[in-house]
Amino acid sequence: MLDEERLDWLRLIRSDNVGPRTFRSLVNHYGGARAALEVLPELARRGGASRIRVCPRADAERELEATRRLGVQLVTSFEATYPQRLAAIDDAPPLVALRGDLAVFSRPIVAIVGSRNASAAGQKFAERLARDLGDAGFAIASGLARGIDAAAHRASVASGTIAVLAGGHDRIYPPEHAGLLDALLANGTAIAEMPLGWEPRARDFPRRNRIISGLALGVVIVEAARRSGSLITARFALEQGREVFAVPGSPLDPRAEGTNDLLKQGATLVTEAADVLTVLQPIMGRQYAPAARDPDQPQQTDEPDRDARSRILALLGPAPVSLDDLVRLSGSTAAIVRTVLLELELAGRLERRGGTVALAAGPQDGR
Amino acid sequence: MLDEERLDWLRLIRSDNVGPRTFRSLVNHYGGARAALEVLPELARRGGASRIRVCPRADAERELEATRRLGVQLVTSFEATYPQRLAAIDDAPPLVALRGDLAVFSRPIVAIVGSRNASAAGQKFAERLARDLGDAGFAIASGLARGIDAAAHRASVASGTIAVLAGGHDRIYPPEHAGLLDALLANGTAIAEMPLGWEPRARDFPRRNRIISGLALGVVIVEAARRSGSLITARFALEQGREVFAVPGSPLDPRAEGTNDLLKQGATLVTEAADVLTVLQPIMGRQYAPAARDPDQPQQTDEPDRDARSRILALLGPAPVSLDDLVRLSGSTAAIVRTVLLELELAGRLERRGGTVALAAGPQDGR
Repeated sequence: MLDEERLDWLRLIRSDNVGPRTFRSLVNHYGGARAALEVLPELARRGGASRIRVCPRADAERELEATRRLGVQLVTSFEATYPQRLAAIDDAPPLVALRGDLAVFSRPIVAIVGSRNASAAGQKFAERLARDLGDAGFAIASGLARGIDAAAHRASVASGTIAVLAGGHDRIYPPEHAGLLDALLANGTAIAEMPLGWEPRARDFPRRNRIISGLALGVVIVEAARRSGSLITARFALEQGREVFAVPGSPLDPRAEGTNDLLKQGATLVTEAADVLTVLQPIMGRQYAPAARDPDQPQQTDEPDRDARSRILALLGPAPVSLDDLVRLSGSTAAIVRTVLLELELAGRLERRGGTVALAAGPQDGR
Repeated sequence: MLDEERLDWLRLIRSDNVGPRTFRSLVNHYGGARAALEVLPELARRGGASRIRVCPRADAERELEATRRLGVQLVTSFEATYPQRLAAIDDAPPLVALRGDLAVFSRPIVAIVGSRNASAAGQKFAERLARDLGDAGFAIASGLARGIDAAAHRASVASGTIAVLAGGHDRIYPPEHAGLLDALLANGTAIAEMPLGWEPRARDFPRRNRIISGLALGVVIVEAARRSGSLITARFALEQGREVFAVPGSPLDPRAEGTNDLLKQGATLVTEAADVLTVLQPIMGRQYAPAARDPDQPQQTDEPDRDARSRILALLGPAPVSLDDLVRLSGSTAAIVRTVLLELELAGRLERRGGTVALAAGPQDGR
């Protein structure tokens, strides 16, 4: 990929209201990042926003330069060095910032995650499991958090481990794990979706978790309370078709409530590395179909007229509605409906949840 | 049932080399306990034993009288007060000695068993589960052992619990649970297969465990090391078509190794009473077909001649062989093979394992 193209990709994903899914829609719809950048302000205006911040070329150039100085590579999802399995998920980051030894991505990856306030037994078990799976040839992905995550990384520093960051590469969280991160870069990698200088906020962690599961063949949850971040990772894993493993614990231990729930829902019970290997080794060599990388077909730009736009907007509200229903009820083509939704999304007025859309609850630009 | 018949049943089951399965074969084969008692010495002689001890009438009378003095009822498997589900297992005791409030058998029964050296958490969980299942209308069966068993009984003294003894009613093990046993008799029952005065030996406990699972719709294993008695109960439960439940625990806790193994093998994971109720409530009302009570059809007494007996004996050795193979290889009828096997069994020379038979390893009477 040319540096010029990489710059366009970076500008597009760093522009307001452009997430991984919108990015893909735009590029597919307009045939490339450059063309999408050009129509962005007009699309947002039609969607109801008075203005949209398009990432300036100079900012993107500065980011590229700064990442290079830090020894970080910005890799697009079309490049061979982009992690193969991650590219196959629906909302794969268009670009990831990678640091360390990228050879780790050529190995099968298993994620090990769990409670920040893990028990000593939980941490000991995570270490044992990470070491044994490392010895069996797996790279270990986790979130660099306190507790289980750190234990899993520590035990796989030598064999190869991947730390998935919620913020930028220069904003390590928690700060006391900066040393662990440095140590793991010799045989492993740190990966970030967010730009340099990005301080991770609470909502960045669940978003980050989809990358942990997306990288891996399967996710092992070692200890997890109910409603914890680890269970979000497990849910992502299910949605992405990854294997879900859980470590059992006493019913009287709140840190085992989440994992025991997962087991009741059908997760594979893990008490030793062999339980993971038995499930993952048969699927290790399986290739993901390249088609999964790009499910939307490039389509004709169907320009919605003012009437169509009004009809579709009138059908939307705070309750989620499916694309199929919108097409049927509006009498427009799917292409037109998609265009109107894209405009609303760029204006920050649309929320996507699963296969449905709804008007965003927050304050909106007036029309 | 007439007292006279009960006496014959008691004499037959208390005679040497007559276990529950042999008892049933004999009664089916000879049309009743009285007839079986008469042929017993001759059958054993043909099987190769120089003599067999047939329980004298006076001994059986003394046992009946002693049990009555202790407030214990001897109930045969043909009587209505015999526990319904227990009667349906292959090797149901022909007679059980019951003490306490027999009304408990009219309720659905769930067994809760586990380690003798249970953790405090395990005992606490067993108590909670027994109390909640008791509140839900279940009687709780267990083995009166230290640890999990005692916790399960204690928590269900008020709602109704069943202690299954490995020895006689006057030989309570462990002795310090005599008080617990007295307490539970007000709303519950103690059940024993062995005669009064019988001191439980190591091998009586596994044998007793088939009664715990046989009484119940399902068995919950709370804590269990590998190769523990609780796992024997779980295996019996599977063989008897009972539901098997297991409580998860940390992979680093040896007391959870057995239960975690059961979960890997498909046992239902239990962290609260609702997990048990969800499975058992739909099957609570299901009746066992009376046919299951007596799968062998009464058959013609096919008397084997000396040649047939020699041919069949020659086919037997320490390695297990199936009845089908014996019939095929000996050229005899199934009825003749069964008769020869019965003779050998009564002579103490045969071991049955599952559907196969083998010559017993121990010292034998000369021919």
